[in-house]
Amino acid sequence: MLLRASTMFVRTLRDDPADAELPGHAALIRGSYIRRAGAGLHTWLPLGYLVYRKIEQIIREEMLAIGGQELHFPALLPKEPYETTGRWDEYGPNLFRLTDRRNAEYLLAPTHEEMFTLAVKDLYTSYKDLPVTLFQIQTKYRDEARPRGGLLRGREFVMKDSYSFALDDAGLAADYAAHRDAYIRMFTRIGLPFVIVAATSGAMGGSASEEFLTPSEHGEDTFVQSPGGYAANVEAVTTPTPAPQLFDAVASATRIATPETTTIADLVDRLNHDLPRDDRPWGPGDMLKHLAIKLTEPNGTTRAVIIGVPGDRDVDMKRLEAQFEPAVLAPFDDADFAAYPQLVKGYIGPQQVSHDAPESTVRYLLDPRIGVGSCWVVGANQPGHHIVNAVHGRDFTAAGTVEAAELHDGDLAPDGSGPLTKRRGIEIGHIFQLGRKYTEALQFRVLDENGKQVTPTMGSYGVGVSRLVAAVAEASVDDLGLCWPAALAPVDVHVVIAGKDAEIVSYGEQLASELHAHGLDVLLDDRLRVSPGVKFKDAELLGIPLIVVVGKRLSDGIVELRRRAHGTSEDVPIADAVRSITHETNTT
Amino acid sequence: MLLRASTMFVRTLRDDPADAELPGHAALIRGSYIRRAGAGLHTWLPLGYLVYRKIEQIIREEMLAIGGQELHFPALLPKEPYETTGRWDEYGPNLFRLTDRRNAEYLLAPTHEEMFTLAVKDLYTSYKDLPVTLFQIQTKYRDEARPRGGLLRGREFVMKDSYSFALDDAGLAADYAAHRDAYIRMFTRIGLPFVIVAATSGAMGGSASEEFLTPSEHGEDTFVQSPGGYAANVEAVTTPTPAPQLFDAVASATRIATPETTTIADLVDRLNHDLPRDDRPWGPGDMLKHLAIKLTEPNGTTRAVIIGVPGDRDVDMKRLEAQFEPAVLAPFDDADFAAYPQLVKGYIGPQQVSHDAPESTVRYLLDPRIGVGSCWVVGANQPGHHIVNAVHGRDFTAAGTVEAAELHDGDLAPDGSGPLTKRRGIEIGHIFQLGRKYTEALQFRVLDENGKQVTPTMGSYGVGVSRLVAAVAEASVDDLGLCWPAALAPVDVHVVIAGKDAEIVSYGEQLASELHAHGLDVLLDDRLRVSPGVKFKDAELLGIPLIVVVGKRLSDGIVELRRRAHGTSEDVPIADAVRSITHETNTT
Repeated sequence: MLLRASTMFVRTLRDDPADAELPGHAALIRGSYIRRAGAGLHTWLPLGYLVYRKIEQIIREEMLAIGGQELHFPALLPKEPYETTGRWDEYGPNLFRLTDRRNAEYLLAPTHEEMFTLAVKDLYTSYKDLPVTLFQIQTKYRDEARPRGGLLRGREFVMKDSYSFALDDAGLAADYAAHRDAYIRMFTRIGLPFVIVAATSGAMGGSASEEFLTPSEHGEDTFVQSPGGYAANVEAVTTPTPAPQLFDAVASATRIATPETTTIADLVDRLNHDLPRDDRPWGPGDMLKHLAIKLTEPNGTTRAVIIGVPGDRDVDMKRLEAQFEPAVLAPFDDADFAAYPQLVKGYIGPQQVSHDAPESTVRYLLDPRIGVGSCWVVGANQPGHHIVNAVHGRDFTAAGTVEAAELHDGDLAPDGSGPLTKRRGIEIGHIFQLGRKYTEALQFRVLDENGKQVTPTMGSYGVGVSRLVAAVAEASVDDLGLCWPAALAPVDVHVVIAGKDAEIVSYGEQLASELHAHGLDVLLDDRLRVSPGVKFKDAELLGIPLIVVVGKRLSDGIVELRRRAHGTSEDVPIADAVRSITHETNTT
Repeated sequence: MLLRASTMFVRTLRDDPADAELPGHAALIRGSYIRRAGAGLHTWLPLGYLVYRKIEQIIREEMLAIGGQELHFPALLPKEPYETTGRWDEYGPNLFRLTDRRNAEYLLAPTHEEMFTLAVKDLYTSYKDLPVTLFQIQTKYRDEARPRGGLLRGREFVMKDSYSFALDDAGLAADYAAHRDAYIRMFTRIGLPFVIVAATSGAMGGSASEEFLTPSEHGEDTFVQSPGGYAANVEAVTTPTPAPQLFDAVASATRIATPETTTIADLVDRLNHDLPRDDRPWGPGDMLKHLAIKLTEPNGTTRAVIIGVPGDRDVDMKRLEAQFEPAVLAPFDDADFAAYPQLVKGYIGPQQVSHDAPESTVRYLLDPRIGVGSCWVVGANQPGHHIVNAVHGRDFTAAGTVEAAELHDGDLAPDGSGPLTKRRGIEIGHIFQLGRKYTEALQFRVLDENGKQVTPTMGSYGVGVSRLVAAVAEASVDDLGLCWPAALAPVDVHVVIAGKDAEIVSYGEQLASELHAHGLDVLLDDRLRVSPGVKFKDAELLGIPLIVVVGKRLSDGIVELRRRAHGTSEDVPIADAVRSITHETNTT
């Protein structure tokens, strides 16, 4: 491919567009890689589509390499299979639903578990047919409440989704391992750093589950790592419950007046002033902090949940949401407090809430750190009052524990592998052992060796194809623009004609043709009325890894090779130019 | 690619499935190329997706070869641009509409004129930027009233759509010619016979317009050709109006009793009995046949139209529909006749219908063949009565002419190039000079050389990518199954291990590996418990052009080469096998 800047459908922008939230996203728009088409909807312009297709091809090759077979389902699907598995309702407002001219109900599929399962059920009947791995690279739809970061979280996006079908757990484990290896190769080829972390399986159901995250301050996911090798999405971290403590020596719970003391900080100050401890000052870790949450099920029913966490930690809403999927959570607003008069805003305590959670009342859940026998200052469910010496197991109990508190750097890994470090990341892949949820719901059985019906077990494996373009952009962007890894760059080399002399123009053309003839994809900046300075700026913004400047040094028989990512440059005699450049592009 | 029948996601079916309407469609399902996923919705199984992707790649290459630049728009789009151009309403029930979680209105795009125009408007401002040709290969949606023939007319389908933007008509003509040539190369490479015919431009607006049709008895389109080179979709054929005739000698129009004579055939019989002519018997061509039509505009308003055609021709509803797009037509039902008591079913005549068509009355249109001065037997708009000697221009006139009558073999081409032959065909491509409909509606202007604002003119060019798979299947299917052209076959060669002997199995494996190592894509039928007879039947059904049988002749050092399309076979010594097969696949 030999592209010419003079005719390419590209107009670089000098300034960050108003709709760009992140630096990589801004550069993708400025470089004419993508454009916004609506909320959570993006158009791939030609340069962007070249990058997208390179990623797609790498993913396809690695899936074929583990024996995956590519098929392709419609995005528009009838309601029925999703109703059978319950997902028509479970997906709630995230699902785009529509009706056709006959008022039949359809959806734009967010994932295709049902269709994969039905396809295999349609063709296969025997244990001899298994295992099989099928995949597609296909457009998916989610009516996200908060589309974000351009391609990072869109409402129309491309996923590679694959499913393995095996007879038993050992077969599933083998399929899972094959995918794990394929993903490692895939992301390594794409050139994006990644971490494999333990994950929850979300609304999909299932058991063993890992995510591939690329570290990024702009990521929506948070993960932790320990020096001993533990790595997990914070949503998947389990906190050990401390051993029960003796509380014989703890004085009785006592109500104290705490007027206008509705924050943990205020409460600490007041206690240190009104009721100083002998041993040490009161701290936030002595307080039990409560958050009232309204939980909305996909079918629309709501209930109230009170979450108790140590006062020195906030509730991590993403961790909490992961525990309650597919329900949607929202902190209480004033209307909610009005509906539950027993809960006093700023003074919530465990005394007035149910421990065994009948549907109609308020459910009370505690962070696992609140061990039995531990002693806390808690709200009194009365304006202007708290209770000191409230002992868990003596003065209050909960209906259960919930992973809700945010993790801190230095928290210990649950497997004893040391203190945790927290980082943010972008989820680029997810593999998990889904099990029999869909094969059971859709009654897919095969005959085993003994002629007995058995239900196959599934693995589920996703890669965010369009998201990867955004992830790579965010990972590689710098002050000047994009820096594509060689495997993804829209072309291999960017030849800049930096001058108007006939000799320069003609050699630039010749070099581009020769490189093209050597099998390289070339972008030639052949624009006549554009200054070298503007061309250099554009080349930096577009981020092709290798830039060749044909300019005034040509009279000395020299062209300049610039490596975009390293910011280095090198003079090359024109006699060596083609050889150097082809060599460079094969080793970048 | 080396595929193995033992693990391929394929289960051939012996019998035609109930949901297959056409022989190629049935074979695609029986061979596990596709499956139905819903009304007008299809899943590509792995074999089918391989074929699909080959077509996609040929189209892409030919579009890039004429300088087309590939981009990709979302399928899910906000309503606004389509409202600006009026198409949100014009598309009527053919458009899938939906709302998001905030009740904003969206559509699943049937075509992307608006988006292409807005994209170019976004980036380009000057005459120097033009011409530009952009294309995408993308999933489209149409809520068809009658999905048909599997992939032939689906509700989710893939189109290559491209648009050219030029400054003036000469530029547009050049873009159009480039696309026309690209389409010729594209369909030639795909290996499908095609005819280029004059076409109407349908709901898109615009002027010069040609369709690429592949002749097929299963096609939905009808076209005509003359020995002198005229070729047109029947919808686009214009019928010359005969010169006015003198009617001084024609007797006065006379009402006659024709009880229970509501068909042309009955009327001919009755007249020959009751009122025989001196010169010759009455024939259907003496009668003026009327069809009452209810026309529904996209905005829902309806009106009645009476169409008059010579009694020896039927009304061709597709021709008629083309004249009234985007309105929808339906013949009068009893309720419609009840609403228009002046129109008597079976006895409709021109006398009671308006000639100048105010909106509220019935509009009367005549086939161009009904020349001024011609004399007809017409209905009297009175039960049991007709009128003879009704002269057009003396006894009745119409509000205009309409191309409505079906064409007959032997009709003369409008350009004087001889008698027409009618055939059916499947539309596989459509190119036309769209003009300024969208650039005007969306106010896309560029500055010309003199700094004056000018509105660019567009060409519009479509190819039905998924439909092509169906068209090729219908064109090549025979009693045994599919016969892919070499350029589209999922693999190059199908190696059948026809025997259980270790030697046969091992040589089959070796041959497949060697062919694969020579760069061929191979399907190896390595199934252990399947008889050679079943394997041969499957090979015929799957339709790979070259089948290599490794069987009992192996002991003589012979394999058999079968050419699927020709039904021929040839013995090849194993020493020559790889060379013969690689040679054959390069020349098939």
